[in-house]
This record gives sequence, structure tokens and C-alpha cells, in this order.
Amino acid sequence: MVGAGQLARMTHQAAIGLGQSLRILAVGPEESAALVGADVVLGDHTSYDDLRRFAAGCDVVTWDHEHVPQEHIRRLAAEGHSALPCADALIFAQDKQLMRGRVEKLGIGVPEWAPVSTVDDVDSFAGKHGWPVVLKGVTGGYDGRGVWVLPDVVAVEPVVSQGIALLAERHVAMISELAAVVARSPYGQVAVWPVVETVQRDGICVEVLAPAPGLDEGTATTAQQMAIRLATGLDVVGVLAVELFRTEDGLLVNELAMRPHNSAHWTIEGSRTSQFEQHLRAVLDYPLGDTRMTAPAVAMANVLGGPVDGPGIDERLHHLMARWPAAKVHLYGKRVRPGRKIGHVTVLGEDVAEVRAGAAAAAAYLAGTGSSP
Amino acid sequence: MVGAGQLARMTHQAAIGLGQSLRILAVGPEESAALVGADVVLGDHTSYDDLRRFAAGCDVVTWDHEHVPQEHIRRLAAEGHSALPCADALIFAQDKQLMRGRVEKLGIGVPEWAPVSTVDDVDSFAGKHGWPVVLKGVTGGYDGRGVWVLPDVVAVEPVVSQGIALLAERHVAMISELAAVVARSPYGQVAVWPVVETVQRDGICVEVLAPAPGLDEGTATTAQQMAIRLATGLDVVGVLAVELFRTEDGLLVNELAMRPHNSAHWTIEGSRTSQFEQHLRAVLDYPLGDTRMTAPAVAMANVLGGPVDGPGIDERLHHLMARWPAAKVHLYGKRVRPGRKIGHVTVLGEDVAEVRAGAAAAAAYLAGTGSSP
Repeated sequence: MVGAGQLARMTHQAAIGLGQSLRILAVGPEESAALVGADVVLGDHTSYDDLRRFAAGCDVVTWDHEHVPQEHIRRLAAEGHSALPCADALIFAQDKQLMRGRVEKLGIGVPEWAPVSTVDDVDSFAGKHGWPVVLKGVTGGYDGRGVWVLPDVVAVEPVVSQGIALLAERHVAMISELAAVVARSPYGQVAVWPVVETVQRDGICVEVLAPAPGLDEGTATTAQQMAIRLATGLDVVGVLAVELFRTEDGLLVNELAMRPHNSAHWTIEGSRTSQFEQHLRAVLDYPLGDTRMTAPAVAMANVLGGPVDGPGIDERLHHLMARWPAAKVHLYGKRVRPGRKIGHVTVLGEDVAEVRAGAAAAAAYLAGTGSSP
Repeated sequence: MVGAGQLARMTHQAAIGLGQSLRILAVGPEESAALVGADVVLGDHTSYDDLRRFAAGCDVVTWDHEHVPQEHIRRLAAEGHSALPCADALIFAQDKQLMRGRVEKLGIGVPEWAPVSTVDDVDSFAGKHGWPVVLKGVTGGYDGRGVWVLPDVVAVEPVVSQGIALLAERHVAMISELAAVVARSPYGQVAVWPVVETVQRDGICVEVLAPAPGLDEGTATTAQQMAIRLATGLDVVGVLAVELFRTEDGLLVNELAMRPHNSAHWTIEGSRTSQFEQHLRAVLDYPLGDTRMTAPAVAMANVLGGPVDGPGIDERLHHLMARWPAAKVHLYGKRVRPGRKIGHVTVLGEDVAEVRAGAAAAAAYLAGTGSSP
């Protein structure tokens, strides 16, 4: 796996059970997955030499993030490596403009959008679709970075003057944000998890609720079918996460990720097959696992780095375990920075409001931003 | 963790989630846990120099097996290391004779037994308790090794002539074998899992059924209470597995293990807190986790190495996943030897007969000893 963040870290856990040996390409030895992996290669994922050295001897190469250049992925494949998902698929998780065009061609809705490069372009887009306007960097954004919600034309100049490729998107009036996550194997088997609601704060996912509360079965099935059509239509191998806006007029695709995704961390305990195991099964061309839930309601809350003063994480973990013995804690071995994802907490139960409250309180307490248990 | 078998391997998986860094003392780089660990020290657990080098910088030292000499554990503690469970507790998992004496003193039953060293000793024991007689090596046995069921006096000589310390035990007429597994923290918190039935073949555990089918609640509670009394009475810190014979006259202790144990592998998916996480919580002095089951019935079947001809394990795994998508496979990265534990399979469901059949069939197929799916 190229990249050594928490996704690779949790993929290593799953690989151990499957009897697989996960090699990890890490930028540095202190990265999340590098701390726990048995076969860590240090190198730069933007260097083809490093990638080639890393890939030598691997049965399959896969990705923890979208930052590997297309030409490198193509060259790995040309040199005989099995690199999955392939460059032709991954481009749609790397380039938001190409993605939107392709998704529309597959007959699936996205919010109205247009490529923009000047203040006039944005103002003209707003003339059709109204303020606020959402601007997104075409490449490279994540966790709220590379996304700007602009209230009026005055706010446009500082963004367009950065000189990055941008697209404008209508600011959608949404009921909620959903995620439909699916895995697809090389010969086309698909397996989809129940559709979840994702709760964002400042552009960062803070909670995931499975199954999405109050979602009618028809809409849930539509979302799953969209994910399957996208995985098939884009020839994705591995996990595909489809972030969706639920609106009065139906479901619209927000973003795609072709790797294990924050919206499916709940599957570690909450589904018979976790997304990490499933991603490995898919890219290794094993049959896919059962995606049934293990409890009626599951909530996952991210632990976002809080203030660094106060009791240390070890003491907070101690209190959390005493107060919430059923909470499943996942720490990523990362240094605390305000707002950084340093772990997550999952709670299983019967009632969505109850598991949500438990997960959120435990995560906030662990972050140092919640009240004392 | 001293020792690098499958117990350390699965403990590493649990340590990753907790944000801990598990250092492993391995005899060789091909050992089960050494293949997946990030911090592997090669050395011999019977060498104090190796143990000291390994323990330097560890917050806590704990055990994957019972083979570390008592004097080394005492010396580690004397030199300021936190080594858990401590030597005074672990001795009762290392020495079957001391264990039996101590368990009886705690008012808990064991099968009638006596130390023996000659054919006459055994014949005299059989005069009181009848044939067959069970002989056990006082130290060092596991997985059926070090245990002999002798039908008559003629069979005694080859065993006593080995010159190892032996005890004779009455061959108990049992209804079933059970295991009560508990964890205990340094300040005395205990958490016990539901009592399970263990199914043995040729002295090796082949299946574990949770909860033990057909076990009345009174007996189950008694077994749990015995486990708690033993953990407390012997000052165990970490996981204690109490193997029990269920007889018409009540429960008798068979053996003790003070580490994660085969009889609780089912807890990885089948309980809110796995025995591996719980062992870490206990020895690290964190509060213990919730031991509730995640499904009404859980079965675990060991994958015992079968014939090495026929399709390879990778092909068998492929078929298994296609036929049993809900089966959870755990492979230990071990080379196949006939009868060797190379992995296990866990199945969760509603009905014990169904999950047992599924786990057994999947494990046998994976071993190469079962019929085609």
C-alpha cells in the first residue's frame, strides 16, 4: 500500500488476519502505519524510482491516498505490476472536473457545476445558480481543504488569485449527507454496505451513523445502486466511497474516493466484513465478504486533535474506558494537532440516538474537547 | 510480549487499535508474530541477557507462553520491570502439581490426583481410582503433548521411563469440556466472558462454542465465579483461561493458562472486547472492556495443518471465501505441518448448530481435510 496514514495502518490489521504481508510506502518512520507495519519502505510516492523500488516483489500495489501521479501508476502497470485501482479508474478520484463529467455521462446527478478561472466566471455562475457559490480545487483537496464556500463576489478574488484549477459548484440545499460504500473485485463482484449518514463540521467528517437514520428504503437502495453503477462504470477495483448529498430533488454525487474511507470505519466492528478486509479481498482478487451489520445501530465519531494542554491522551483513554467500556477506540499513533484526525471511536447498540451520543461524547472526551465523564 | 506465536500476532492487531507499540521477542524472524510486528527483537526467552535486552524500554512485559523460567521473571521484576502476570501467579500455569494443590486450597475441585514416579505409584493410584489413568508431565505440555491416557499397567513403563516429573489424574467421566475466561487488572477489576464449550480431538482443541450449548445458567455462573476466584486468589493480571471438566458431580479444573487462550479466539468478532485487547488493557492497567457477545451464537474452529498436497492454501482460501462469505478467517502465517494450528475460522449467527457446522466445514476445507465446498 502506497501511503502510511491511518488507512494503511488499519489495512495492516486486516492483512494480519488474512495471512497477508502488507508492505507500506511511508514518507517517514513516524507515520501512522509505519509505526506498526512489519515491512515499511521509506520513500516518496511522487518519485517513480521510489515507487518502483517499493513495488518490486509486491503481488498487488494499492493506494492509501490519491496523490500518486497518474503517469507513475501507468508506468507501474506498463512494467507489469498489478496496480489497483488502475490509473483509468483512479483519475476520477483525483480530478474533480473529470469525475463530474464522467458521472453525468453515466446518468448520475451532480450539483450544477462549471470550470472557472476568473472572478467574472464565478460571478456569471452565481448569476445562474445564486450565492453562495462553492469553489473547489480540481485536484488535491481533502478534509475541507481545497473547498471554499463564498457568500458573495467580494470573496472570490483571494481564491482565484491562488492560480489553481478551480470549479464552481452550486451550493446545494441538502437534507443530509450520505455515503454509499461498495467494494468491487477484478472480475466484477460487488458488495455494498448499508448507506450511512455522514455529519460534517467545518468540512471535516465528525460522525458517521449506520444505517442512515430516517432514510427511506427506496432512497437507500438508489444510493447503493448508484455506488454499484459507478464502481462498474469507472472500473474500480477495491473500495469505492461515494459521498452523496440528499436533497428534495434526489441524490447528487459530491465526491468519490477509491480506497478505504472515513465513512466506513464503522465497519471494523459494525459489519461482518470491514472495509479494510474487503479492500484487500478485492485487490487480491478474493471473493468479497458479507457486509451485514453486527448490530442494529452503529455510530463512529472521529477524534480530532484538541488543545495540547490538560491531561495527556493516556490519562484520557483511561477515563474513557472506565466511563464507556463498550466504546471501541482506534488511535492512529499521530501527534496531536488541533483539528487533526488522531483516532476514532465506534459504538454499537440498538438505538441510533444512543450510540451517536455515546460515540460523540467518548470521542470528544478523548480529544480533550469534551466534558469530564 | 515474550514469544511470537499466533497469540502475540493477534495481540499486535489489538495493540494497533489501542495506539500501543507492541515489542515482540521472537526466536526467529519467521515466527507468526515476527512476520507482522513492527518491533521484533530476536532472542531466546530462556536467556536472561536476551530478556533484559528485550525488556529495556518496555512499559510492561507479558507472555505469549509459559516457557519463561521463573528465576528470569523474578529477576526482571527485581530489576524494576513490570512483568505481568508476575512469577508468583504464573507458576500455577507452569507447574501442574503446584496448581492442583493451590486450587484445592482455594476450595475449588480438581480431579483426584497424585504425584507419581514409578510403575508401582501409578498402579497403586489405579487401584484407588480405576483404569484408565491419565498421566501428565508436571511442566511443559500443551496441545495434547505431555498427556498420556493409559488403559492398563502395561502402558505405564514407557512413560515413567522418560524421567520427567509426572502426576497421575483420575480419568474423569465428563459431560463436556468448558472454559471460563476472565481478565483481571492490577487493581482487581475483573471481566468475564460467557462460558464456552471446547471440543477436543486427540488432546487438541478443535472447536469452541459460545455460549456453551445446553449449559444451565447456574452452572455457567458457577464456572464464571470459579474463574474470578482463581484470578483473584492467584493474583493473576491479564487473561486467565480456566479449562474445566463438566461432570455429574460438578465442575473440576483441568488446566489454567495466564495469557490469551485458544478457547477465547472467538471473542475477536464475537465479543465487544476481544481477549487480546482485554489482556493489553489489563496488563497496561486500563479499565477493562465490555464482554457482551455480538451475536447469539458464535463458533470457532481451528485450522489444523493437513496434507501438503492438493491445492495450496491460497486457492483453498479463495474457495472458502466464495462458499462462506460470512466466515471470519485468521491465518497465522505458519508453514503447514500435519496437526499444527495454522489458523482459525469464526462464524457468528443465531443458531449454535448452524454456526458450528459452518465454522467446522470452513476450517476443514481450509486445512485441506474437508470436502469440496
